[in-house]
Amino acid sequence: MKKDEDFGEWYNDIVERANLSDKRYPIKGMNVWTPYGWRIMRQIDQFIREELDATDHDEVCFPLLIPETEFQKEKDHIKGFDAEVFWVTHAGLNELDVRMVMRPTSETAMYPMFALWVRSHTDLPLKTYQLVNTFRYETKMTRPFIRVREIHFFESHTCHVDYDDAERQVDEDFSILENLMDRLCLPYLLLKRTDWDKFPGAYYTVGIDTYMPNGRTLQLGSIHHYRDNFSKPYEIRYENAEGEWEYVHQTTYGMSERLVGAVVGVHGDDKGLVLPPDVAPFQVVIVPILKKEHYDEINKAAADLLSQLKKAGIRAHLDDRDDRPGSKFFDWEIKGVSLRLELGLHDIQNDVVTYARRDTGDKGSFPPTETVTSVTSILASIKADMRARATESMNSGIVIIDSMENIPESIVKFGWCGDEACGHALEERTELNILGTPRNDETFQGRCLVCSRETSTVAYAARTM
Amino acid sequence: MKKDEDFGEWYNDIVERANLSDKRYPIKGMNVWTPYGWRIMRQIDQFIREELDATDHDEVCFPLLIPETEFQKEKDHIKGFDAEVFWVTHAGLNELDVRMVMRPTSETAMYPMFALWVRSHTDLPLKTYQLVNTFRYETKMTRPFIRVREIHFFESHTCHVDYDDAERQVDEDFSILENLMDRLCLPYLLLKRTDWDKFPGAYYTVGIDTYMPNGRTLQLGSIHHYRDNFSKPYEIRYENAEGEWEYVHQTTYGMSERLVGAVVGVHGDDKGLVLPPDVAPFQVVIVPILKKEHYDEINKAAADLLSQLKKAGIRAHLDDRDDRPGSKFFDWEIKGVSLRLELGLHDIQNDVVTYARRDTGDKGSFPPTETVTSVTSILASIKADMRARATESMNSGIVIIDSMENIPESIVKFGWCGDEACGHALEERTELNILGTPRNDETFQGRCLVCSRETSTVAYAARTM
Repeated sequence: MKKDEDFGEWYNDIVERANLSDKRYPIKGMNVWTPYGWRIMRQIDQFIREELDATDHDEVCFPLLIPETEFQKEKDHIKGFDAEVFWVTHAGLNELDVRMVMRPTSETAMYPMFALWVRSHTDLPLKTYQLVNTFRYETKMTRPFIRVREIHFFESHTCHVDYDDAERQVDEDFSILENLMDRLCLPYLLLKRTDWDKFPGAYYTVGIDTYMPNGRTLQLGSIHHYRDNFSKPYEIRYENAEGEWEYVHQTTYGMSERLVGAVVGVHGDDKGLVLPPDVAPFQVVIVPILKKEHYDEINKAAADLLSQLKKAGIRAHLDDRDDRPGSKFFDWEIKGVSLRLELGLHDIQNDVVTYARRDTGDKGSFPPTETVTSVTSILASIKADMRARATESMNSGIVIIDSMENIPESIVKFGWCGDEACGHALEERTELNILGTPRNDETFQGRCLVCSRETSTVAYAARTM
Repeated sequence: MKKDEDFGEWYNDIVERANLSDKRYPIKGMNVWTPYGWRIMRQIDQFIREELDATDHDEVCFPLLIPETEFQKEKDHIKGFDAEVFWVTHAGLNELDVRMVMRPTSETAMYPMFALWVRSHTDLPLKTYQLVNTFRYETKMTRPFIRVREIHFFESHTCHVDYDDAERQVDEDFSILENLMDRLCLPYLLLKRTDWDKFPGAYYTVGIDTYMPNGRTLQLGSIHHYRDNFSKPYEIRYENAEGEWEYVHQTTYGMSERLVGAVVGVHGDDKGLVLPPDVAPFQVVIVPILKKEHYDEINKAAADLLSQLKKAGIRAHLDDRDDRPGSKFFDWEIKGVSLRLELGLHDIQNDVVTYARRDTGDKGSFPPTETVTSVTSILASIKADMRARATESMNSGIVIIDSMENIPESIVKFGWCGDEACGHALEERTELNILGTPRNDETFQGRCLVCSRETSTVAYAARTM
């Protein structure tokens, strides 16, 4: 299957061949996380925990079910979700008095409790997060990690004394995001969504989009400033230093298992996965090239390599299966292991270890005594190169347009007067989605692509996955 | 609140004062894991992962929802659960064609997939586990961690070539269990449940019970041998070396958040929680006893202590709040921190650090240069002593009886002929639950408590939480 020829088919094929997920579960869009895929997700979850713990967020775990009465409290929010939630209506042999929804996101579960937890300005900021699964009744075509009905994700929810403090939280979220994306070697765009595309109930939404090789963008998550839009209906108030009661300002930040989908789609090639070293279940695989008369010697050298790497905290695996080396190379290429070490009689006699990088296919060698430093430095290069290539690919996929004709299969940039009417007109005529305007101002002088009025606002649009 | 006087009230009060869980969530029996409680659970989860990963179990994550059609396949199983599951009947604005249950346990989710995964004897043993939440429509009075409707738990599911290999898995589960319970300083009984109390669909069930200070037992989990009871309806078969198709034999092993409930109930005292050092979010708290003229000196010494402990991998916290030491002591006693270090001017002048053990209240001191070795050794003593005390308490709570009159509030042991009729008669007359018979034979010679026939079988019974 060629990535260039049919990206969608290639993607599904790679997910299946690398055994990241099994979509034969008897409910559409609810897939089984098989061990290899789940190890990647667990590794990402661990980075999320590290980042959020380090920035003084407390991990919590809220119930999955939300009573319909709580779910209805914020009008825009419920309007945005009621066509896509699963309803629990019966328990045991009884019909429930109050129906319950399975969380599509946890605002309506958390905020009645935040109203109990927040009393005084000394309780603020309140910074919490959880790593849970969420449920959406997706009616479009499903795709592993990218469009599913049970979604693994994290959501952080914070409460602040005022607008500006919530704004500082949004900035902190951006730096957490950068750390995560660096580990995944993924480039991204931060665009403030249009009013008609923001999160239901949000004051503003910044979408986090990455660029897929088929010219489409994939939204990986978002960061929202809610102002006091939720704190008013849920009555989350605090007593300020002057003894007056004020509503908190809130933010949320969430990213989903689409991170795994992006890793597969952005980095993979026709041979299989190419995993960023930070999330690879195995960063290094050692393949001994056994010669009959030298079994013990080669196996011993391979075991030594393994033990050196493990001691240094590198996730290494020795493939001692009774199989041909070529067949092992093939397997580990599908699995995307960052670096392969080969060790044959010839290598031992020359006092070298031969390596092959998964990302570029480049080969080389180093002395066995320098294994840990060499491997560490090669893995660092792989990481840096993977991100640089992905960034270059995204940047070269961003095209400025001044006409709605012959739009390329990529991300487009154009002048926009900011009027909703012009935005809708553009989306209809081009069949693109407006992703929004840069969160950090970009200098621009031009005309609105639709109405030709002069404008200093640039907008981004693309087809989305 | 006195633990001795009203254990149930004391338990609820401690959970609330230590802020382990918030039961004000608007659905009965679905509580919020607040940060401190969730940190304890996360630590336990980590031990579970370490143990199961080390014994070659693969972590997976199966969908939460199970179609009614799959759920119905094993008759005993569905009979055991259909009065206690939550039903999803609608999605978005539509009624579903096939209703779905929220997992009460995952046999019926996993086994249709195992039937696809297992083909050959080389695929066996298949050893998987997951850490997820499960849902039961509990109609009895709820209690945090002990009887809830959304239950955090792990479940391991394995497939084997035959009965004996599954039996070996059960033995491995026992050793995993011992490692976990050692970390939690909890004693336990392993009793083979009666036929009328085994897991629906199991060939046999071994219950894991601990002993609570009110004389009742608390079931923490169980280990099941299914034989081929599930593999037949779900058609989980493999081709053996001779090319014949055979059904796998299966086991499961699961334990729930009741582990947290047991830690609270078994170890706590009238001052609050007493946490086993291995699961305490903070193992050590440092409280500086500040004197105005010596602020800097004392703070610096306290910061030094903190940094030494952290470097050694000990979870330590410096309480530098602007508050009286006595009030800090009180707070950390409620939270159950294993060891308190005090550092005042007097200590610094005498070149000592003063400590107080949470479990015994014992005080002592050590030189600051020996901080890490002293703390490590005190924590080890706390762990050993906590388990020894809990074990002694359980053992002294096991009483041999030879009459159904005046039964003590504890675990009772008695002769049982093994007949179901005698078992039911005993349960009715004494209002106890038979917990079962020892998995490892205990020598016994006596008479059945009900029918007086001679028997070499001893059974255990108790009131259960």
